[in-house]
Amino acid sequence: MSAPRISRVVVTPVAFTDPPLLNVVGVHQPWALRAIIEVHTDDGVLGLGEIYADETHLARLEAVAAELPGHDPYDLHRIRRLVADVLAKGDGGAGASFGGMLDVDSALETVYSPFEVACLDIQGHRAGVPVSSLLGGAVRERVPFSGYLFYKWAGHPGQPDDDWGEALTPERIVQQARRMVDGWGFGSLKLKGGVFAPELECAAIEALRAEFPSHPLRLDPNGAWTVPTSVRVADRLRGVVEYLEDPTPGIEGMGAVAAQTDVPLATNMCVIAMEHLPPAVAADAVQVVLSDHHLWGGLRRSAQLGGIAETWGMGLSMHSNSHLGVSLAAMVHLAAATPNLTYACDTHYPWKQQDVITPGVLDFVDGEVAVPTDPGLGVTLDRDMLGLLHEQYLECGVRRREDTVYMRTVEPDFTPNTARW
Amino acid sequence: MSAPRISRVVVTPVAFTDPPLLNVVGVHQPWALRAIIEVHTDDGVLGLGEIYADETHLARLEAVAAELPGHDPYDLHRIRRLVADVLAKGDGGAGASFGGMLDVDSALETVYSPFEVACLDIQGHRAGVPVSSLLGGAVRERVPFSGYLFYKWAGHPGQPDDDWGEALTPERIVQQARRMVDGWGFGSLKLKGGVFAPELECAAIEALRAEFPSHPLRLDPNGAWTVPTSVRVADRLRGVVEYLEDPTPGIEGMGAVAAQTDVPLATNMCVIAMEHLPPAVAADAVQVVLSDHHLWGGLRRSAQLGGIAETWGMGLSMHSNSHLGVSLAAMVHLAAATPNLTYACDTHYPWKQQDVITPGVLDFVDGEVAVPTDPGLGVTLDRDMLGLLHEQYLECGVRRREDTVYMRTVEPDFTPNTARW
Repeated sequence: MSAPRISRVVVTPVAFTDPPLLNVVGVHQPWALRAIIEVHTDDGVLGLGEIYADETHLARLEAVAAELPGHDPYDLHRIRRLVADVLAKGDGGAGASFGGMLDVDSALETVYSPFEVACLDIQGHRAGVPVSSLLGGAVRERVPFSGYLFYKWAGHPGQPDDDWGEALTPERIVQQARRMVDGWGFGSLKLKGGVFAPELECAAIEALRAEFPSHPLRLDPNGAWTVPTSVRVADRLRGVVEYLEDPTPGIEGMGAVAAQTDVPLATNMCVIAMEHLPPAVAADAVQVVLSDHHLWGGLRRSAQLGGIAETWGMGLSMHSNSHLGVSLAAMVHLAAATPNLTYACDTHYPWKQQDVITPGVLDFVDGEVAVPTDPGLGVTLDRDMLGLLHEQYLECGVRRREDTVYMRTVEPDFTPNTARW
Repeated sequence: MSAPRISRVVVTPVAFTDPPLLNVVGVHQPWALRAIIEVHTDDGVLGLGEIYADETHLARLEAVAAELPGHDPYDLHRIRRLVADVLAKGDGGAGASFGGMLDVDSALETVYSPFEVACLDIQGHRAGVPVSSLLGGAVRERVPFSGYLFYKWAGHPGQPDDDWGEALTPERIVQQARRMVDGWGFGSLKLKGGVFAPELECAAIEALRAEFPSHPLRLDPNGAWTVPTSVRVADRLRGVVEYLEDPTPGIEGMGAVAAQTDVPLATNMCVIAMEHLPPAVAADAVQVVLSDHHLWGGLRRSAQLGGIAETWGMGLSMHSNSHLGVSLAAMVHLAAATPNLTYACDTHYPWKQQDVITPGVLDFVDGEVAVPTDPGLGVTLDRDMLGLLHEQYLECGVRRREDTVYMRTVEPDFTPNTARW
């Protein structure tokens, strides 16, 4: 037995229906995009990865895919270096934006991530162990997720109402939460805010508290508030939320809020790359960092983030964008193998209706997903569904996530609510 | 293929001859102690580890060894937890001292380390890949080491002179360096100081510079100097040394020195555990951290230290205690798979005359060791030599490293030189 070589890499863009979920920069388009990565080896092993598929990103993924054959799937440092080189030769890889909310200075980590996951999937298959074992072993058999609540329209403009219906009031948010809790068993709840004035969103959180007295609650306005507003909200929701996520933009702003409240502040906006950690630590700006292997350069670097959070006494939670089952499997393995990831993870999973993996492995029971014990990620591509979702990609016309552009087709004067209140 | 189980663990204390090398706390005893760890699995794989063997440490290793059978060698997080539990049930595991120079608050990492290395050796054997591949892949095919120079007596008291002879002057240190460079090819040199007044040790460094104009040089007095002395030495050796290692004790002292010089300060004394990093970073006390998988809880946590050093812009080098080939192999795999470990590593290897591994794999060429490409650590136990070195352990009478106690058999009034000058 010797190290295999990558023989073929396939990048397949897919689209799946997404409800009109509202957020600080606008509203989700009718189609969410993902790229499914297949990495084949010369000894017949297939590894899977999944990531964003905005067209700029897709072109970068394909440029890397073309260079990967011949490489050893254990040579992750060199593959990361290869990604950097490919980006430098191409469009430079400077900057990547996903939906107007997540902007990174370099595309390196987001391009590298799905290839790293696919290589770990290969390594797990070859060793006959799950990916969690490659990350130090699962410390929990099931990974808890939070029910992810959204303000939303009844349906996309010009389309029939969707199955979830309108949610623009505290009452409707509570109804949505009830369906999430009854249907999926979630033991904690997160509300995506930044849509309405903070008083209204506080009222929604308080309505959730009344309905679910023991569920940990989170509110994430994606930086919709000023520092004083953030402090006011923190005062109001002290003891009600387990943390406030990104109340205000930027490390400096978060630090100013943190200095005035003991409510933990979490972030997936101002600390989304290794280079953000030193200034955030120096400013004592965040108490909980949200990990996300798509953003942080794969599972191993996310595990490293976990170690940094532990070393500096920061809490650790997990972020989610709209995703399919390959990403969910990777998230579950990472969470299982991260001892200090003690918060329930975020997931958009209940909002999607189709998937590219064979069902049955990642079912939610009591709000938790059992860590797959089969080799690798433990999930299998459903090639019929992959084909269908790729067809949808080809036909839907969406080529990038543009929540603000889409919102303006309904509200022409809309501007993002960043630090609005 | 499924995950194996640990079936048997053997801890073998060994002793090998060590020359009378001088340092801040005294002098090396005639015998250096190590423990060789064998972890066997139920599918017939053997993994190796190596660590200190002071009697207190040995008892802890044996207590853990007794509990390991039945565990999955991929379950590293759980095995680390097991070590913590065993220590808590035993002597508490509070504190560990190695030679009076390295004192750690908890024995967890030093007890866990050799078992982690052995488990990674097993994982590598099972996957047919070297340990470096399990750490993200080797980014270099050869790992450079520095020639480690010591002031020394001609021989141990009451014994004939050893092969290296006396080295108590700059001239003799240069001679020692010449032998190291000619015999092993080292491209950089480190002098262990803290033995004589700093002016004499500076003179030795300057003599080395004259003889080896292009070799990077380091001086490590193990905290023998006060802050003002450290600053004075830094002024004198600016542009001569690539870094000063632990000129003065403690994070606070190192921070005070760092504030007054632009000579990089390295440490293997004030930052030797994850919990030392936040205060050291806050004080900007060290510019180069010395990694050591024995101290930092194994190869994966050492890789994590590498990531932290990269994130906070600190340099990374590697520390050594007297060791044998199992440790050297682990050090080489770690160094090869740590992209930002750009300094030559320390090693005591030239000072030992016997080993427990089959020779030929870890030869020094041009001061470098080629990264083993065979599965796992890539080294094999020589059971005859293991038996011989264990016999030596049984007969030598040394049960713990006590440089100061041993020095006092020659100089009854000796006290460690810590912050003496």
